[in-house]
Formats: sequence, structure tokens, C-alpha cells
Amino acid sequence: MGDLDTVLSTVDQGLDASLERLFGLLRIPSISTDPAYAGDCRSAADWLVGELDALGFQAERRDTPGHPMVVAHGGEAGPELLFYGHYDVQPVDPLDLWDQPPFEPVLEDRPEGRVIRARGASDDKGQLMTFVEACRAWREVHGTLPARITILFEGEEESGSPSLVPFLEANKTELTKSLALVCDTGMWNRETPSICTMLRGLMGEEIVIRGASRDLHSGGYGGPAANPIRVLAKILASLHDDQGRVTLPGFYDGVRDVPEALAAQWETLGFDPAAFLGGVGLSHPAGEAGIPALHQIWARPTCEFNGIAGGYAGDGFKTVLPAEARAKVSCRLVWDQDPHAIRAALRERVREMLPPDCEVEFHEHGSGPATVMTTDDPAFEKARAALGDEWPGEAVFTGGGGSIPICGLFKEILGMDSMLVGFAHEDDRIHSPNEKYDLTSFHKGIRSWVRILDALSRG
Amino acid sequence: MGDLDTVLSTVDQGLDASLERLFGLLRIPSISTDPAYAGDCRSAADWLVGELDALGFQAERRDTPGHPMVVAHGGEAGPELLFYGHYDVQPVDPLDLWDQPPFEPVLEDRPEGRVIRARGASDDKGQLMTFVEACRAWREVHGTLPARITILFEGEEESGSPSLVPFLEANKTELTKSLALVCDTGMWNRETPSICTMLRGLMGEEIVIRGASRDLHSGGYGGPAANPIRVLAKILASLHDDQGRVTLPGFYDGVRDVPEALAAQWETLGFDPAAFLGGVGLSHPAGEAGIPALHQIWARPTCEFNGIAGGYAGDGFKTVLPAEARAKVSCRLVWDQDPHAIRAALRERVREMLPPDCEVEFHEHGSGPATVMTTDDPAFEKARAALGDEWPGEAVFTGGGGSIPICGLFKEILGMDSMLVGFAHEDDRIHSPNEKYDLTSFHKGIRSWVRILDALSRG
Repeated sequence: MGDLDTVLSTVDQGLDASLERLFGLLRIPSISTDPAYAGDCRSAADWLVGELDALGFQAERRDTPGHPMVVAHGGEAGPELLFYGHYDVQPVDPLDLWDQPPFEPVLEDRPEGRVIRARGASDDKGQLMTFVEACRAWREVHGTLPARITILFEGEEESGSPSLVPFLEANKTELTKSLALVCDTGMWNRETPSICTMLRGLMGEEIVIRGASRDLHSGGYGGPAANPIRVLAKILASLHDDQGRVTLPGFYDGVRDVPEALAAQWETLGFDPAAFLGGVGLSHPAGEAGIPALHQIWARPTCEFNGIAGGYAGDGFKTVLPAEARAKVSCRLVWDQDPHAIRAALRERVREMLPPDCEVEFHEHGSGPATVMTTDDPAFEKARAALGDEWPGEAVFTGGGGSIPICGLFKEILGMDSMLVGFAHEDDRIHSPNEKYDLTSFHKGIRSWVRILDALSRG
Repeated sequence: MGDLDTVLSTVDQGLDASLERLFGLLRIPSISTDPAYAGDCRSAADWLVGELDALGFQAERRDTPGHPMVVAHGGEAGPELLFYGHYDVQPVDPLDLWDQPPFEPVLEDRPEGRVIRARGASDDKGQLMTFVEACRAWREVHGTLPARITILFEGEEESGSPSLVPFLEANKTELTKSLALVCDTGMWNRETPSICTMLRGLMGEEIVIRGASRDLHSGGYGGPAANPIRVLAKILASLHDDQGRVTLPGFYDGVRDVPEALAAQWETLGFDPAAFLGGVGLSHPAGEAGIPALHQIWARPTCEFNGIAGGYAGDGFKTVLPAEARAKVSCRLVWDQDPHAIRAALRERVREMLPPDCEVEFHEHGSGPATVMTTDDPAFEKARAALGDEWPGEAVFTGGGGSIPICGLFKEILGMDSMLVGFAHEDDRIHSPNEKYDLTSFHKGIRSWVRILDALSRG
């Protein structure tokens, strides 16, 4: 039996013990958004420090103004890698929709296979423990780690990561490695692992249009008085042409074509737009004309309206001319689009269309460019091959329509690419009652990291 | 002293007693919208029956499924007139903004003169009592009434008048007279009384646009998924052209030019658009280009957006693609515009613009045509002259931008025009804390009705 096989078989034999350790972590209710659980977040951090120490890492709890970070260093040779995960979890309400207490993990037999059921089973305790357990098995066989590994566990991912940027900035040298490994994403399907290499950025903006100094009666003022809802509707309606393209000047600056090789790989995924849209009661792709739905999600920008409010929208009817109307607008960004330029173009459009009697107020709600990994780093092909060895299907490079802020921050602050490998599934019910993680995800996830670390360690 | 002067002087001498009676009515908390006050509404009706009986009317409380009506008949000769008022009042919240308990009326000396302060002082108990007290003074002098008068007092005007239509329909013969007198409006200014002869109609509609079967994440679906806010904004934005005109086909059918004589009278009012708009923080008339603001309010139709909602509009930001968005739209209508044809045209527009993946639901929220009085009935000129005798300024025929549903119903169900004469002022704070009625409005209001009844009774 070769070295790799020995480690993999160690994983298999130790699975029950690995599960027992995961259950220990899952039992800690580390809900980061609720101050009542601050002590539990600290306990989860301490628990991880203990585990990592036992694995030969030099591990520390690092306190922040919020919940602590865990930082651990281990390994004497091989590539320098950073692994990131988060130990905090979402709240559990509504509790009565859970089939069992959310912090009393159980193994459950389901028609689709055995699952680990608990809050955090998938997001992100189960996923981060796949990496920890891979390190453990490797060390058990080799007495050391396959690489010089730094681990960063965050405790505020589910509550906006307020301490993250200052922490990265204060610890740049310590945390900057050749590549960040992040385990917080999913597989393409149950057979096909994926490495997410493109994430869309985001520019969020709130527009408040104000007219009269108070709500008016439409009988007394309807006609001469400016109506902020009408002004807002005109502005929003101006933002897309009839081909679904965004009309802001310069909006598409920095948008690139999908490289042919990547487009060809996406073609093999068998993405079914009808099934995708059908799952949410839709049937007609509504985005830019002529662009396939999968490209619309992964590689094209959007300008969406996430919320709108003005006047009286409750039961019944009030003939009010509202003093103000507001909309939340966000753009998903791709490739090299500049969120700041796009925010400026949006504000300029609003100001241009503002009638003399209205005022506008803007509120910035975050911005980050898209994250596109440099997949010509050989690490990506190595990891893809390693994953293909473990799972029935070839691993694919996928995109992600959303943003994973940590990847943008690693790029921006530490100048480091991220490799996103995860084993979650669409049906894991993360953030919802009855969250679960497939036992297969956990088991083969550990084995996957063993293979990836093995491949990366081979120079 | 002529007969008329004797009656007027009786009004003057009896003012304290008139006030005492008004205070008696104001002390009854007849809030129609709150079931807790149902007994008080009944008490107010009984109180009025008692007063009218004492004045020689044959008065009755007529029960309805809601709050009772009061119907009274009096007088043996002269024209047949119906007088309408309402004894119910608005709720008093927020109570802590009142300077005194709302149902403990007081006389208060203010820089602008003496005022009666209480809920309902102006709307409509003070106003309806001007007519009752005019009848009382007339009867005191003449032993009878100046006309064959039917009084109808409603107790549900502030809560949507649910019993009114069935009541009018069931009592057509009893209630149909040559003219309805309605005292629920205001003066043009403190010197100038007015008779409102044109009221705009209303067509209210709620539009609900539905897309996906649930709210979606804009990362996962932004691009291919239809966004109901975007669809709604496009539809609303299509409803006006850049001259502020409504673009629905047939919308202006039935809209007439303001007759020259009436336009000339309006010209004399000295309406100051800058002051009017400035009072609510505006400065640029926003309605149809080239139409004076006063004409926009009284004689031109509108299409307004009274409320809009969709997605997440609270604090912070959620990148949600909402499953639905809704807007409340209302058109103020003039002259012979047909609310049903306009509702149909609006729905047709929405359906035309609806993309394949969206559905629409419509909710009808009332409709009534404009009410334009036949002012060539000599009663209008007689009343105008009578008002001019009482007040410093000539009385004017004005329009009203809002709807007073009772006038439309009298026209529609009883085939009867209404003459709207009232003595309220803009600063009466009706529906708000610290409602008041000028003592001058009450006193000279009573005298005005004496003069009007005198004029109408002279064949």
C-alpha cells in the first residue's frame, strides 16, 4: 500500500472518531449574531485550539473586539498554504421547525443516504473539520503535515465579519501564503466535485427620493405636487434597455468574454436552464438576450432591484402622495468591473433624472469587485485531478453567482488567490431548520483534502 | 327690523346657548371606526334625534347593520331640501399630542381669534350644528321652518360609509329632494366663502406582479430570474409622457375645457401656486405642462402612485430577488371620464407589458366619476349672493381636487345635485390632534344658513 492509500485507509478506519469530534464541535451553540452566545463562540474557538494543538499545530485563540479568531501554524516543509473556515453558525429560529434540538447532533438514515443533522453540520463546522481530520490522518501516518499550513478560523462569518479586515491588515505577514484553501462551498452535484474559480462582486446602493416636506393628500395636491414613487419608477425603468442590458455609461467596462476552454468545460456540466428556473416556478430566462442562463449567473453582471418602498402599501387604500420613496439596488459584478465607477454612474443617472422639486439621498451598502482566480497556477489543476481521483465524476471549474467576501479580502489585502473546494449540497438547508451534511460529504471530503494536500506537496 | 334681521339677531343673542348645545354633542366620543365606541355613536344619534324633535322635526334614529342614521322631516311650505352631515368623528390617537382631552370641548383664545377646540369641532359636528342652529333661530322667530327640510345625519362617514348606499337605495323616495345641502367643506379664505361645484372622481387599483414562487438570492438567480420590481417600475414609468400627460389610450375621453366664465372667476381668487407649493416644501408644478396649478387640481385628471412595496426595504441590505412587488395606483377623474373604462385601460397596459414569466393580480379599490354640479339651477346664485351678504368677500364657485363620495352617491342614486357650503379652514387640523373650529365659522356659519334658507325660500 502506497503512502497515500495508507492515509486514506486511516481516514476510513478513524471515521467514527472523526464524527465524534465533529459532534463535539456541533454541540457548542456558537451563534455569532446573538450576544447571548458570545461565551459559546469563545468555547468553540478554545475547542478548536485544543484540537489543533493536539495535532501538533501551534494554535492560539486571538481575541478581537468581536468573537475570537483561531490561528494555527503547523508543518515543516512543502508549500505554504492558508486554510480558512468559520466556526460560528446562524441562529436556529424558528426552533419548532427542527425535528430535533439543533445543537444535539444525530446521524440519520435518509432515503438519499446517511446525514449528520445539526446547526452548522454543513455551514461551516462539518466542512472545516474535513480539513482538520485530513491533517490528523496524515500526521498519524507520517508524523508530520504535508505542507506548511496556517489555519485561520473566523467566528463572525455569519454576522458580517466586522473584525476580519482589521485582523488581516494587522497580520498580513503571518497570514499571506502562496494560496488560500477555503472550504465553504458546494459540489456541482453528488457525483461531481467542483472548484469555484469565479465569484461575482457586488455594489449595493440605496436611493431615497424626497419630494414634499410631508405626505400629501392626492385630492388636494394631485397634479402639481411631485410624486417620489413616480420619479423613482422612471429612474429604475431607465436602467435596462429592452435587451436586458444595463444602460449606465461604462457599465460593461472590464467585462470579458468567458475563455473558450472554460466555456467548453461549462458546456459539459449539463446545466439545464429549464430545470433550474422551473425549480422556482419560472420558465423564461429574463436576463441579457442571447446569453445562456449559466453564463448570465457566473460571468455576466446584473443590476437588480432588491427592495422598494414608498407611500401606503398595507391593506386597503390611502390616497396619499408620499413625501419619499426608496429603492435598494445592487449590481453583481464580473471580471474587472469597478464597483466605485459603477456606483458613481448610478448616482449620476439618478441626479440627471431628478426633477427640480426632488432631492436624493444615497446610502452605500458595500462594494467589492469580482474575484477571478488565476487558474494557471498549477495548484488548481493538481487539485482538480486529486478530486477526480476521489469522486465518480471529473472535477470542474465552476463560477459562483454570489460573492464570498473572504476571497475578495484575501486578494485585496493579502494579494492571495483562493481555491474554493467544498462538499456541501443544495439540499443541506444551511441557514434553515434541520440543516444537515451528508455523511459522504464528510467522509469523502476528508479523503479529498488528503489527496489535494498530497498533490500540492509534490512540488 | 326685517324678518331676516330678526332671525340673525336671534342667532347672535342665542350664540352662548348654541355653543352649549354643540359642546353637548362634542362630549360624545362617537368614533365610528372603533367598535368600542358603538354605544357612543348610538348616543350621538339619539342626542340629535332629541334636538331635532325639540325643533319640531319628526326625527328618528334609523338603525343599520353599522351605526345608525338620523332622519328628520320638518317644515310645511317652500322648496324641498335635503341637508346632510355626519355625527361620527375620527379616532384621537396620538392622545399625548392633544393639549386637552379631545372630548372635553373648550373655548380658547388664539392670536387669530377664538376657537372651539375638540375632536369633531370642525369635522363635522360644528359644521352640521350651524344648520341645526339656523333652523332653531328661524323657528324661534317664525314658528316654522323656511322650507320643507329633510335632514340626514350619517354615523359612518369616517369609516367608509358601508351602510350608506343600501340606505339611500332603500329610502329613495323619502330622501330625494330638489337639492342637497352639504356642510362638510371649507371657505376659500377667512374673508371669502365658497360653494364647491366640481369634485374630482377616483379610480383606485392595486397591481400585484408575481415572478418566482419564492424570494430568490440575487447571487444564485440574478440574471435569468424575472424581477417583479423591475417589471413594475417599467409599467409605472410608462404611464406618463414627458409632458406629464397620462398615456393610457382613451384616458382623456370626457375631459372638458373649463367654461370661460368659471375660469374667469377662478382667476379672481388670487391663487398663488408658489405659496401653495411652498407650504409643503415644493416649488415647481409637476403636473401637465402648460396647465395652471389650480386647474391641475380642480379640473384635470391625474394618475398617481400612492404606494409601492417589494423585496426588502428595511434597515441594511438583503440581496433578495423578490417573488412579488405591488403598487397602489389611483386616478383622479374630472368631468365625464369613465372610471370603468380607465380601469380597463390600465389593466390592459399592465397585461401588455407583462413578461412571460410574471403573473398579475388586480385589486379594485373603489371608483366614482367626478361630480360636477348643474350651477345654472338658480339656487346656486341665490346662495352665492346670500353668502356674500354675510361675509366680507364675494362668495366664489370653487372646485375640489378630492372626492366627497356623498355628492356622487346623491347624484347617482337619487339623481340630485349637492350644494357644498362649509365654513372650515385649512388650519382646523381635522383628523389630527387639537382639532378646532373658529368661533367665527360657527357663528357666521349659522347666520349664513339663515340667509341661504331665506334666499332659497323666496321661490
